Amino acid sequence: MRPIDHTHNPELTSWIDSANAPDSDFPIQNLPFCRFQTAAGSISIGVGIGSLVLDLAAACNLFAPDLRDAISSRSLKSVMQLPVAQRIALRQRISELLSADCGELQDDTELRERAVPGQDQVQLLIPAQSRDYTDFYASVFHATNVGSMFRPNNPLLPNYKHVPIGYHGRASSLVVSGTPVRRPVGQLSPAEEGGAPSRGPCKLLDYEMEVGFYVGPGNELGTTIPIAAAEDHIFGMALVNDWSARDIQKWEYQPLGPFLAKSFATTVAPWIVTMEALAPFRCAAFQRPEGDPQPLPYLTLESNQSQGGVDLQLQVAISTAAMREQGLPPHPLSSGSFRDMYWTISQMLTHHSSNGCNMQPGDLLASGTVSNRDRGSRGCLLEMTWDGDLDNPVPGTQRTAIQLPGGEERKFLADGDRVIMTGFCDNDQYRRIGFGTCQGTILPATE
Amino acid sequence: MRPIDHTHNPELTSWIDSANAPDSDFPIQNLPFCRFQTAAGSISIGVGIGSLVLDLAAACNLFAPDLRDAISSRSLKSVMQLPVAQRIALRQRISELLSADCGELQDDTELRERAVPGQDQVQLLIPAQSRDYTDFYASVFHATNVGSMFRPNNPLLPNYKHVPIGYHGRASSLVVSGTPVRRPVGQLSPAEEGGAPSRGPCKLLDYEMEVGFYVGPGNELGTTIPIAAAEDHIFGMALVNDWSARDIQKWEYQPLGPFLAKSFATTVAPWIVTMEALAPFRCAAFQRPEGDPQPLPYLTLESNQSQGGVDLQLQVAISTAAMREQGLPPHPLSSGSFRDMYWTISQMLTHHSSNGCNMQPGDLLASGTVSNRDRGSRGCLLEMTWDGDLDNPVPGTQRTAIQLPGGEERKFLADGDRVIMTGFCDNDQYRRIGFGTCQGTILPATE
Repeated sequence: MRPIDHTHNPELTSWIDSANAPDSDFPIQNLPFCRFQTAAGSISIGVGIGSLVLDLAAACNLFAPDLRDAISSRSLKSVMQLPVAQRIALRQRISELLSADCGELQDDTELRERAVPGQDQVQLLIPAQSRDYTDFYASVFHATNVGSMFRPNNPLLPNYKHVPIGYHGRASSLVVSGTPVRRPVGQLSPAEEGGAPSRGPCKLLDYEMEVGFYVGPGNELGTTIPIAAAEDHIFGMALVNDWSARDIQKWEYQPLGPFLAKSFATTVAPWIVTMEALAPFRCAAFQRPEGDPQPLPYLTLESNQSQGGVDLQLQVAISTAAMREQGLPPHPLSSGSFRDMYWTISQMLTHHSSNGCNMQPGDLLASGTVSNRDRGSRGCLLEMTWDGDLDNPVPGTQRTAIQLPGGEERKFLADGDRVIMTGFCDNDQYRRIGFGTCQGTILPATE
Repeated sequence: MRPIDHTHNPELTSWIDSANAPDSDFPIQNLPFCRFQTAAGSISIGVGIGSLVLDLAAACNLFAPDLRDAISSRSLKSVMQLPVAQRIALRQRISELLSADCGELQDDTELRERAVPGQDQVQLLIPAQSRDYTDFYASVFHATNVGSMFRPNNPLLPNYKHVPIGYHGRASSLVVSGTPVRRPVGQLSPAEEGGAPSRGPCKLLDYEMEVGFYVGPGNELGTTIPIAAAEDHIFGMALVNDWSARDIQKWEYQPLGPFLAKSFATTVAPWIVTMEALAPFRCAAFQRPEGDPQPLPYLTLESNQSQGGVDLQLQVAISTAAMREQGLPPHPLSSGSFRDMYWTISQMLTHHSSNGCNMQPGDLLASGTVSNRDRGSRGCLLEMTWDGDLDNPVPGTQRTAIQLPGGEERKFLADGDRVIMTGFCDNDQYRRIGFGTCQGTILPATE
């Protein structure tokens, strides 16, 4: 885990006023990375601060020579591949330059003008062009809920508590928050067993509230990342919406897993909150209930158990086209906590590389749907509108619609619906930091 | 389908003698693309001709100006994204420059020296750094064999004959032929039901003989590639070995599909045989047995039915460390034909994009194991050593070892084993063309 240092001091303020507002996602204690296109059309990487963004390329002469190549790049991969010590040095220098008592950038009017544009003056891009994207299934509540719908007597498969289950996702269809999402068309289950499938627009379109994390330096093919080294290879975390076409998924997923039910789009937030920023919000890993097996030794480490969790709160809201027309604000659907994931991010990364698979800078690993026990903390509509619960699983697909302001209701997503995810870390001792917004709006199918 | 033109004329010969040998994989009628590092250390793309390679960057002034950017690139993606008409023009010009009656390159001694090195003077690299890799399951014989082992009464799932089943693979662990493959370590099934898994080196290491194809121009996210356009978006085909750790796979694959059982390495051939070169070897698609459903309309096209197949023969041989020490040649394991795949390459590509998923130049799609009816034409050891057959599936895992020269036997791969795949197209009318070699040698596990 990263140490807590002076960059986390809750008394620290910035000369950028908007960063000091108590409700800002991006106080000087956060400093999340992003990638963007400037008004002039060039691509740069930067750091969010209040309502502005520090353009690292524009300000690169203020940094030590050994960091300039990395921060002048048009790709965050160059920062992600830095060794931890350099990443910490970079954070400390950025914190210094943006702090209220430092004049270096604050007093250089010409440079400030160029190097600290408003977030509304730039176009935020997908933060990393991840070569590979992997989706896990790390919430035991989600796995149990979904399993209960299909196998009420045997919801969790025997491997679940031993293996951090995951699958390879599609990298090309990762899109940044704000990109509209076209409702997919696909093969839908036959109405009756043995019947022929139909083809048409997905009728059971869903979101999945997930947390992603990006690989830092990574490992060579044929080598592994031991659990004791895993945190050094995790650059930071971000919100992810793993849109899911449930009717396509149900028909296609056996025996090789989800495919077209997922690959039409996966929305990622533009902001990556670094593991350095998250240091004050680490917590114990999920406490396995009595009787659960312990993980195998390659996934076991005392510090992972005591501090491998992340105390991150998540929220999902919906804004339908009709709600927007009526001027109604987004309606909260659920909130959840990343504390209660069955597997930690270190365990997911270590498991992924445990067969010698090479993890590369910028690779995205997502947690799977973040769900907790209660209905209000389930991370997708498949679970939220389902009439079962963990203690009383109901076979079949009975569903209760969610009532929305303005008189609408939803079991799954309709065209025009906008799903808005937010997340934050907060505790008594440290400054609240936010993850920005990860949102997307459903466009009608074109077929 | 591409037209057959003068570049396919079986009488055509090259001024490069080795290309005219009857057993050459790379006569002037083939012209497969590759990517390589020169002796001087620069990276270039080229075309195989006999035992030499034409360095396209070195020879780029001999090509039309509108092709020079693409062929001077260090990546084959720049060629793959060319529209079909330009790809055809490029092939025709390469054919002309290498033909016996053309002096332009033949007579320029200085340029010949630079631009046509021996294949043994360069290092062949992975041909495309594919962003995404997808693996299908398109042989109904393979799907039925594998299904029979696990579900003797219900080997084929109900979706199989409707959906070209596929899953996202791992792109980072694609390696070029010749790269050693480290035996993976992983979680292996518990010895008895309900027991704890063990962790250790894979004991059931296997190969899968597959055919891959690379995406050409591709499509934008949210759009599709209709089946009538699919062939225009396929650049060419290549041999693929989808190494598989069967004991890891069996334990991890439910419910989200194969993951670490595959992602330790996938070996691809350095040579991509273009769809233009394959024009004389197109054949009818597999004839579905009476009673099988017809594909849905989005996967149906008369020309796909009549010419969507590829008459490509495949061979797998093994060379163990002991065989090499004794000077014994590789021993043939099986041969197969790509004619009998249940789904065509156009159907796979069209299905993949049918939900709006964006296919990008250089993406690799593999067919899944190419198996036919007979034991000698099964494309992996899991099937070859299995005692069942399609008409008499035997439940359980009875296996008969394969006897090798020198007295060894194999049920699965041992350390030091080299698996060598080759492929070729041949018929009475046209010149035989080959796919080169796709091989890898197993290194012992490191744990």
